[in-house]
Order: sequence, then C-alpha cells, then structure tokens
Amino acid sequence: MMRHQQLLDQATEACATREHFSPFPERPGRDDDSLAAIEAGRRAYEERLGDTVELEQPTDGWLEAHEVSPYTRQALGIRYPTAGVDDLFGAAGRAGERWRAVPPQRRVDLCLEIVHRWFDRWFEIAHANQHTTGQSFSMSCIGSGTNALDRGIEAVVHAAAAMDRVPHGGRWEKDFGRTRVRLDKRFHILPRGVAVVVTCASFPTWNAYPALLANLATGNPAVVKPHPTSVLTMALAVQTAQQVLREEGLPPEIVQLAPDTPETPVTKDLIAHPACAIVDFTGSASFGSWIEANAHPAIAFTETSGVNTVVLESAEDLDAALAAVATSLSLFTAQMCTSVQNVYVPATGVRTPEGTIDLDEVVGRLTREVDAIAEHPRRAAGVMGAVQSPATVADVERLEQQAAGRGEIARATGPYAHPEYPDATTATPSIAVVDPSARALFGEERFGPSAFVVVAEDADDALGQAVTDVARAGTIASHLYSTDPAYADRATEAYLRAGASLTRNLTGPMPLNFSAAYSDYHVTGLSPAGNACLTDEAFIAGRFRIAQVREPAAGKEEHA
Amino acid sequence: MMRHQQLLDQATEACATREHFSPFPERPGRDDDSLAAIEAGRRAYEERLGDTVELEQPTDGWLEAHEVSPYTRQALGIRYPTAGVDDLFGAAGRAGERWRAVPPQRRVDLCLEIVHRWFDRWFEIAHANQHTTGQSFSMSCIGSGTNALDRGIEAVVHAAAAMDRVPHGGRWEKDFGRTRVRLDKRFHILPRGVAVVVTCASFPTWNAYPALLANLATGNPAVVKPHPTSVLTMALAVQTAQQVLREEGLPPEIVQLAPDTPETPVTKDLIAHPACAIVDFTGSASFGSWIEANAHPAIAFTETSGVNTVVLESAEDLDAALAAVATSLSLFTAQMCTSVQNVYVPATGVRTPEGTIDLDEVVGRLTREVDAIAEHPRRAAGVMGAVQSPATVADVERLEQQAAGRGEIARATGPYAHPEYPDATTATPSIAVVDPSARALFGEERFGPSAFVVVAEDADDALGQAVTDVARAGTIASHLYSTDPAYADRATEAYLRAGASLTRNLTGPMPLNFSAAYSDYHVTGLSPAGNACLTDEAFIAGRFRIAQVREPAAGKEEHA
Repeated sequence: MMRHQQLLDQATEACATREHFSPFPERPGRDDDSLAAIEAGRRAYEERLGDTVELEQPTDGWLEAHEVSPYTRQALGIRYPTAGVDDLFGAAGRAGERWRAVPPQRRVDLCLEIVHRWFDRWFEIAHANQHTTGQSFSMSCIGSGTNALDRGIEAVVHAAAAMDRVPHGGRWEKDFGRTRVRLDKRFHILPRGVAVVVTCASFPTWNAYPALLANLATGNPAVVKPHPTSVLTMALAVQTAQQVLREEGLPPEIVQLAPDTPETPVTKDLIAHPACAIVDFTGSASFGSWIEANAHPAIAFTETSGVNTVVLESAEDLDAALAAVATSLSLFTAQMCTSVQNVYVPATGVRTPEGTIDLDEVVGRLTREVDAIAEHPRRAAGVMGAVQSPATVADVERLEQQAAGRGEIARATGPYAHPEYPDATTATPSIAVVDPSARALFGEERFGPSAFVVVAEDADDALGQAVTDVARAGTIASHLYSTDPAYADRATEAYLRAGASLTRNLTGPMPLNFSAAYSDYHVTGLSPAGNACLTDEAFIAGRFRIAQVREPAAGKEEHA
Repeated sequence: MMRHQQLLDQATEACATREHFSPFPERPGRDDDSLAAIEAGRRAYEERLGDTVELEQPTDGWLEAHEVSPYTRQALGIRYPTAGVDDLFGAAGRAGERWRAVPPQRRVDLCLEIVHRWFDRWFEIAHANQHTTGQSFSMSCIGSGTNALDRGIEAVVHAAAAMDRVPHGGRWEKDFGRTRVRLDKRFHILPRGVAVVVTCASFPTWNAYPALLANLATGNPAVVKPHPTSVLTMALAVQTAQQVLREEGLPPEIVQLAPDTPETPVTKDLIAHPACAIVDFTGSASFGSWIEANAHPAIAFTETSGVNTVVLESAEDLDAALAAVATSLSLFTAQMCTSVQNVYVPATGVRTPEGTIDLDEVVGRLTREVDAIAEHPRRAAGVMGAVQSPATVADVERLEQQAAGRGEIARATGPYAHPEYPDATTATPSIAVVDPSARALFGEERFGPSAFVVVAEDADDALGQAVTDVARAGTIASHLYSTDPAYADRATEAYLRAGASLTRNLTGPMPLNFSAAYSDYHVTGLSPAGNACLTDEAFIAGRFRIAQVREPAAGKEEHA
C-alpha cells in the first residue's frame, strides 16, 4: 500500500489535463500559527549559523562553505562534511545495491514522503534559501518552496508512469515448425547507476528536486553537488531525505552531499568518475554544453540559460504589457532563467487602440514601470530581493558602460535601499536602448538586471531579430505582444521553428517568469538553453533500463 | 482516418501483453504463386546487377559500391547516386520543413504504409540482402525480412504512443491574489532535426527499419548511411520510402541514402554536420562508443556488440542444450550480435539426470553437434549461409592459431561446400578449449565463428567468469543452463546486476539468437554493447520535443 497514492493519482491527473494543481497552500498563512511557524523556521536557520550540518555519509573533515548572505553580507560560517569522490561513490554504490532492490512503487512512495518532509521544514529551508540565493522570503517560500516541491512531485509522476508502463512479464507462444515454443518472460526495471545532481547558486531547489526525485524513483542513488556559494538549502534537503531513508531501514547514503569550494571544484571529478551514470546540471550554458559533450558514458540532463525576448508589435493595453515586462526585468533582480532580457520594439512604434505609441514613449513608459517598483523600497524588496553574487552587480555596471557607447541608457542600474537589510546587495534594472547591430552586447545571456530595448526597423524585423537571438543562444521563455492575428501566427510559427515555446499577450498578476508544475513544459531541449524539460518523458527515459529473463514455461513448471 | 489503424492497434496490444504477433506470414509459401514471386524477386535482383539504383535526391555523380556477393564472389557492380554532405543536409532540411508540418497521426500511418511497401518487395529485398550480407535466403526473408519489419512496426507503435501521451492543450486557471488567471495552452510536438542512420554490413534491416521509422514517425527527415560493402538492401528500402512519400505529395528527400566507400568514409562528416540532430548506429563497439561520446549536440542511439556467454551448470537434457548452443555457434556463421561466443563449463563437468558428464565429453558432444550441421552441406547452407567479409575468415584462422597456444582446438574452422554456390565464402565454427587466464583471447567480441569453451574451476567460478565478460565488454544475449533453482536465481541476479538480460534453459527449435519483436527487449543499454533498446520508450524519447504556446483565454476570444 502506498501512503501517498491519493497525491500520486491527483498529480498524475493534473499532468494529463495540464490543469492547475498543488497539494500545498498558495502562500504562507498570516494567522498566528503560521507566523509562529515562520518565526521557528527563522530561528532554526539562525541557530545553524556558524555551526554544522550533520549528514550521514562518509566524512573526512569539514568544509566551511563560501556562503555570504546577500542580505546581511555576513558569512554564514556553516560547515559541511567532506569526503573524497571515491568515498562518496563507494558509499553510493553500496547504498544503491539496497535501493535498487526496493520495489519501484515503494520508491515512488518514499519520494513523495521526502517531498512531504521537505515541506515540513518549509520555513527553515526558505530562510536558508533566502540567505544563500538572495531571493525574497516570499519567493523562497513559493517559487523555491512549494512550486519547486510541485515540480518534484511532477517528476515522480512521470517516473512512476514510465515504470508502470513496463509490463511485468508475460507468456509468449509461437510455433516453430511443428513445435509450439512457450516462454515465460519477466521484465526487470534496472537503475542506471550513481547520479550526480549539480545545482546552481540562485535557484537550486526548482531543478534539484525534480532531478533528485527522478533519480531516486527510478532506483538510482544520488550525489548532490551544490554551488559552492549556495550550499545550505541543498544540505538541508539532503539531510531530510537521509532521515526518511534511515527511518525506513534504508542506507541514508542513497542521497549524499558533495560540497566544494570555488578554488577546488569537484564537479568534473564527479562526472569523470567511472561509476557516474547520470548527470543533472543547472548552471551556465557553457558548462552545460561541456557536460553534455563530456558526460559519456553518463547521460546528461541540463538546464542552462538562453536569451529571453519580448516582441512588442501591438497591444490591447500597452501599459499592462509594459508593466508585465517591467516586472520580469525586476523580479529577483533578473537572476532567473526565465527573466526577460531583450525587448524588441519597431522603430515605428507600437500600435494600440489609442493609436501608435512612438518608440520614445514606449521606452519612457517601460522605464517608469520599472521605477514604480525600484523607487519604492518595500515593493522593490518584495519583487527584487537581493543579488546573489556581488560580481553580478559589477557585470551589470560594466555592460551598461559598454551599452552607453552603442546607444542610450534609458535607465541606469543602481542599488535600492532594502527596508529590512540596510547592507543588502541590491541592483535595479539597467535599460539600454540599442539597435540590432549591437548584438555583441545582448546576443547572449547577460546574467542579472541588464535589459535591452532593441529598436528594429519594423514589426517583421523585430520578429526576425528576436528569433535570431533564440536560434543562436537558445531561450527558456519568449514573449509576444500582438493584437494582429496574422502577425501572431507568423511569430508563433517562427518561434516554434526556432525550437522555442512562446507566451502571448500575458498581462496581469501572473509574472511572465511563472512556469506551472504539471502544466507548463519548461525548456524545449532544442536549444543551447538545455537539453532537458521539466517534465516530459525524455526527462525520465534512460534513468532506468529494462532487462528481461526468459525461459521455457515447461522448464519453469519442472522447477516448481 | 488512418489506413493502418487496425495494424497499429494490434501491434500496440502486443507491445503491452508481450505476446506473439506479426501481420506477416511465418515464412515464404511453397505454393506456385509464392515460388513465382520468389523467382520474380530473384530476377529483379539480378537485373539490377551492373546497373543503377535511382533515387530522388541530390546527385552529383554515381558511386559503384564495393559490394561482392559472398555466394558468387562476383562484384555486384551496382551504382548509387552520390552527393556532398552539405547537399544531403540541405535537401533533408527543406524536405523536413514539409514533413514536420504533417500531423503525427498521418506520419505514423505513412510509416506503416512504408512497411507494407517494403513487404511488397519482400523477395527482391531478400535476394539483395542475401547477396550483400551472406545470409541464407531463408534468413534474408525472415530474420532480415518479416522479423525486421515487425521491429520496425514496433518502433512506430512506441513513437505513436509517446506522441499520443502528449496532451494537445488545455485550459489552466489559477488565482493570483484576487484575480483569476485563465490561460489557454497548446502543446506542439517538434521534431529534433535531421537524423543519420548508420547501418551495418551483415544485418542492416533489423536495426535500420526501427531507427528510420522512429525518426520518421516523430517528424525527422533521415539520411541512411549504409555500410560501404552492404548498400543495396538499404538503397531499395530508401527507394521504396521515397516512392511512398512522393505518392503522398511529399518530398522524397525526407529519406535519402548516403553511400560511401571504405577509402572515403562519410560517417564522421555526417555526424559532425551542424544540422545532424540524431544518430542511430549499428556496428562495432569501438565506433559506437566514439559516436556516443562525440555525437553531441546530436543524440545517439547505438547497438554494437558484446560478448555473449553460456553458463552450462546442469541440464535436464544436455544434448538438447548443446544442440541449441551449437546452432548459435553456427547460425549465419556467428555473424549476429546475438551469436554465442563463450561457453563456460565447470572443470568438474555438467550435472544431468544421468549423472555428471565430464568436461571432455561435454566438449566432444558440443563439437559433434556442430559437425552435424557443418558436415552436411544442405543443412550447413541453411544454417550458416556465407561469410560477409573474407577478412572474417582470416580473423577466425588467426585467432584459432593463437588459441592453440593457450589451450586445445576441439574443432578447427574450415570451409564447407555450399551446394548451390561453389564459390561461396564459408567458414564453420572454430571451438577452442581454454581456461579463464586466456581472457585476452575471448574477453571481447570476436566477430565470426570463433567459439571458446572456457573451463572454470566450478559452477560458481563459471558464473563469476561469465559475468566478468559481461561487465567488461557488455553483452546482447546471455544464456544459462541450470536445473538448480538456487543457482539459477543467483545467476539471474548476477546477470541483472551486470546490466544483462538472461535466457534460461532454452532448447528446441527456437534459436538462442531469436529476439521477438513486440516481446523481447533487445539490448539493455547498460553496457558497451549499446545504449539503445529495441524498443523501449527511451528509444523514442528525445527524437521529438514539446514546445508550448500559451495565452490568456480572454485574449484568444477577442481574436476570434
């Protein structure tokens, strides 16, 4: 019997209908109990500072990670157990022998139990996530919390379904000449081997939960390699998974953590280990591409980064469109894989029911929409949060200087004063207005709040230029605003031909960046922005294999 | 409406139950009509000799392939159109634009139509296959004919099912604050891109049909790169596919042929082409491994070769077991990926109901079973056929000389006199008796009829040694004979841990080599013997991707 059968059934149904679903609350409550729970989570996080995270895995020492809160600029000073790569793989291999023997259905159930237990630590993990990634507490609770847990459940659904579609066995009968051959066949689901899950600095859970759970459900032990500046969230997630496994009488080393430092990175050693069979990676496009090319014989699943474009041809409500774009330029200081970077506008302006709005006015309104967030500290704090790495601020400033030589800076980057954390590292969006000849500036992902309004000749040029970005650099989220059905159809076809998904005419309270578990296919796998999708069947395929045992039916009866 | 809906339904059901199924006759009939059809097929083949195969694709000249009939030792002298790699990809890209626009269900239907049309040329293609691969005419009709067509249908079933599981779209609704957001989402199946299908010399259709059809069904145009000494079968298959496409008003260049020569091979150029998105490969383990490691950004599906073992611990009917093994050593002169190579026997002999049969007697009986095939030309011709490449004969002889220095040659290789083709290149099995220290001789695939009886210390050592082969070199077919349920269970577990499938105690008229479409999962993907399975979901995953278009439901209504 599965404890979580009902959840699995509901989530499976949602994946089929693509309708909204979540077993979790929309957001943290505001009642006294919820506030107390949030406070308890904060205390649990703060008590960890300067202390250790104990894990049940081989340990040859302790490593103080290079973690600095983007809010306080104070080092977290948390130490994590370290071990050699061979020791980690050795323990994973031994633990994996036990895990592969656990029936798939029970593995699925335990994965869903782990999800529940991660949710039990909702606010502790959210505080950890806030102070390692720089996300607002709200985003840490929702985007990196419940939404990420949902994406994890979604991966379990697809793994369970894929394994369920493998027949258990059957009787096969066929005449060979005058003899009827009868064979009994059994089909066995075999895990591929030890998985390595490499997580990113700014948004680790959202990809780590699905990857880790897809591996576990299909029988593979996993080693989680967190970004060296963003370890704590993953350490707590691993700790919880280990606790669940131990309570079930299973070796906790089925899930392990492999912390490292920027000076002595271990990712390539983990991937090059002969026992490494699966790699999940979230991070830069260049390292992702290296992993895809070099993981063999391991299989690799990557989500990296691309150039996210908006084509602004015409709009029913231009201000609403610009507000949506402004939010995407600002949300988590544009440190998301779905953050908009390039906004293509025809030099002739944008058509609206009130007439064509000229370019300067469009840029002016977009800038004011950003200002409306950036200039109000409470709102800025809620939307933008903080900047994970101070290097990002320097990158944005440097790029702005370069852009100034190629166009006009409509809005200069700069910090905003965080109302709670005066020392927070913050940065508001830089908006440069350039023409397509400046593609060297905007033709690749510029991590952080560097936005470009790219002035195209006309609407068709805008589309062509945007699709050029997508075809060259890949994309994760692309947007179109157009009230012209023929243009919208052409644009849709152009994005699909470039291997990209498209969101059309989205305004209102749902951020452009939002990707819904169970409903939105996240990353097409057809561009340098990643080869894996959250979550389709290809995200599961290959994580387990099928072996068969066949024998004459009569022979089996004789054994009985 | 699908023409072939009933076939698709029946084959889909068979893939779920794993029961026997085929829409084709067991074997060619012996009535007058059948004999006339076989004769017509022979004439069609013979009329092709010294002539050309016309294909509808870019052509810059003609290439006379290095094809020599293993039966007549005469060059076939057939010329095929050639084109530069860029021209082929250019044509594939243009044709692919049309093909991707064909709805998935119609693509599936056309794939099944192509299968039917291949079957319409059953005997012509079988003669072509016989005189390029060296297979017997019977094997060319069945193993390379109807069985291969069945594996092709099976791939179409899995492709159709995978695409069918992708929802077409749906309405998604979720409250953000006090606003209900309603989005309409459409999900689009996108092909990955141009596929390259690299086929082998000795058994091209069995892997080519599934690979080609999996690519076509999922919307990808394909370039078939046949082995330079075994082109004709693939050229006829491509020609037929092109005819079906043209009749449907589609560009024939959706499927193209890329013949080459041993002196100027094009496989690496095809794979390195920037537009190459998928590679299917059947051939050597070393080249397969190179392709797996270097195909990126293309994805690769490989079936190569491994070491196929028999562990002979005990048998209910030893002679029946040895007859089955002898047939595998002989069938198509052991040029199959499923041919047995290493037979592990305990030094203490093999237990039977009549008592333990000692090693010498086991070897003697095995040798006599092989002789019973090899020394009767009509039987030898039916079982062994001819040797595709004369180099294989030299390899077997050289290996036999080496083995003589390490053990005893129980049976020396040598030709048999083919009753119909006195000039046929033939070779009967070489059987060397060695101990495990001679692993340098038998620890990798030795293509052709080089067999080894490996004398282990005892039954457990036999199992351990056999599994060592499997773990190091991979395997495609492994066999066990044991009447001891505890030993059989241990052996099964050991093979499964090594990532291998296992056939237990198979005797009788079904060859050990036989792998049934719709029922047997062929290749686990967990060893150097190949990363792909005929046919599981992973064989389809990644050949198509999913992109989505989402927009506010209200906005859509306004467009309407």
